[in-house]
Amino acid sequence: MHEEHDGLSPELQQLIEATVARKVEEALSARTVTIEERITEVMGRLDALEEDQLTDRATLVVFSGDFDRLFASFIIATGAAAMGMEVSMFFTFWGLTTLKKETIYSGKSLPEQMIGMMLPSGPETVGTSRLNMMGMGPLFFKSLMKKHNVETLPSLIEQAKELEVRLVACQMSMGIMGITKDELIDDIEYGGVGAYLGDAGDSRLTLFI
Amino acid sequence: MHEEHDGLSPELQQLIEATVARKVEEALSARTVTIEERITEVMGRLDALEEDQLTDRATLVVFSGDFDRLFASFIIATGAAAMGMEVSMFFTFWGLTTLKKETIYSGKSLPEQMIGMMLPSGPETVGTSRLNMMGMGPLFFKSLMKKHNVETLPSLIEQAKELEVRLVACQMSMGIMGITKDELIDDIEYGGVGAYLGDAGDSRLTLFI
Amino acid sequence: MHEEHDGLSPELQQLIEATVARKVEEALSARTVTIEERITEVMGRLDALEEDQLTDRATLVVFSGDFDRLFASFIIATGAAAMGMEVSMFFTFWGLTTLKKETIYSGKSLPEQMIGMMLPSGPETVGTSRLNMMGMGPLFFKSLMKKHNVETLPSLIEQAKELEVRLVACQMSMGIMGITKDELIDDIEYGGVGAYLGDAGDSRLTLFI
Repeated sequence: MHEEHDGLSPELQQLIEATVARKVEEALSARTVTIEERITEVMGRLDALEEDQLTDRATLVVFSGDFDRLFASFIIATGAAAMGMEVSMFFTFWGLTTLKKETIYSGKSLPEQMIGMMLPSGPETVGTSRLNMMGMGPLFFKSLMKKHNVETLPSLIEQAKELEVRLVACQMSMGIMGITKDELIDDIEYGGVGAYLGDAGDSRLTLFI
Repeated sequence: MHEEHDGLSPELQQLIEATVARKVEEALSARTVTIEERITEVMGRLDALEEDQLTDRATLVVFSGDFDRLFASFIIATGAAAMGMEVSMFFTFWGLTTLKKETIYSGKSLPEQMIGMMLPSGPETVGTSRLNMMGMGPLFFKSLMKKHNVETLPSLIEQAKELEVRLVACQMSMGIMGITKDELIDDIEYGGVGAYLGDAGDSRLTLFI
Repeated sequence: MHEEHDGLSPELQQLIEATVARKVEEALSARTVTIEERITEVMGRLDALEEDQLTDRATLVVFSGDFDRLFASFIIATGAAAMGMEVSMFFTFWGLTTLKKETIYSGKSLPEQMIGMMLPSGPETVGTSRLNMMGMGPLFFKSLMKKHNVETLPSLIEQAKELEVRLVACQMSMGIMGITKDELIDDIEYGGVGAYLGDAGDSRLTLFI
């Protein structure tokens, strides 16, 4: 790579080579230290932002046990899962009814038995929040939903499972209402407010239904 | 730009020039490749974060048809729009009542006609979720709201439109309840759960009311 | 650092040194200006992203006055605060009941007095949204909650205060319902929809309960 400069002495050429190398090193060091410090700062800030970034996730508290609100919850949850979001549904209080497969009375206290008796025994038998008409409301809606090819609640629950929507039963509500794991459907998770907040604090979409 | 250096022969100046160019190139190549690679990485991560960033947007599901909850929805929606946020309200199930201008019975099935008959015919006639007192509740609140110079529901709807709040009627609910576009007010949009999730997944504020 | 080059005059050496320094500076500047411009751009984009980032905050609208929903609100709020989140609860409409310590009738209009009479006078006396059974519902739940060592509503309110959850009474609702500051508990804040949206738009978790 060295060009020959015939008119110049080898000493001179060597001096220039050495001087240039030294000056370049000095000038670069001064500059790149700053540049590299700034890039390191940038990387740190990027790490923090990415760590802090919300996941493409939806976390729903399903508090209500009304047919219409449950229906809306599952439409949103399965829709979000179908669009590729991670979805968790936390069933608490009346919402727990959705996950029931049967009501067991033995071994429960009187208030627990009374609550078990008064609540629906599963998603097939929940009422609507309005126009319930002594229990006729859901039948009504089911006939209209069938006419419009809309999924029913039990089939939406199945669909949610297939789409890997996480169905979580609130343990504190189970305790208060005296509902045991044996009364709930299979393939669900159990968690408390801590599990909920862990998911919700990292979600782009949080709803209380 | 070249200064004259009387003491340096043209050959020497040329040598210096060439050597500097070469050395700088060598030194920088070694260094800036890394720096430029890191900056390119940084830019990519920034693009991803910005793409992923939530918009200054609020997306509300208005599920309830109760006067008090509708009122709260519009107070939040118009407040957010007035503060410069993009706002969408998705009216579903009982919330659809808000967008009704009239009830049409002809051409509907019996369950659809019954639902039409039992639901309020527009925002002027919805009841409150509590203290409805056989329909007196809203009158009650309207008198108190008037006393305190608070907007009424129909005027809040108008205000929402003026503030470019997007009012979206849920098509699936319209189908189930047998509500047609002719029964709803003008200047609204129609959408499904996909449209809702598109907006909600990009919103800083998401509520189910 | 300077090596001695005996064959060359000091003047020449000095001249070479100066020329090299200048040339190196020119060559480097051309390159690093681009790098520094890109880093400055990066810093600007990082500032914008960080400014825009949601705070580790939860903002709840407590609209409902039902025992079970209030209970769920406080479980979520105190759980979030215990996990280190900043938490605000905005009590509006029926939710205001939670913050009442007494009902004052003098100086109120007739509708205001009627609302005061019909609403619960504080968190001890609110009903449940379902299975209220003429007011027996909460007693029922209280007995079950006691059995399961779950906190009661008044103790959850105390706990929320201790965890520095901000309890905010909605001023517009106070106006509509004719509730005065004298009727509400101490150590709470007062705010409107603007204060709510300021908090909510900066929160990772937003719920309407």
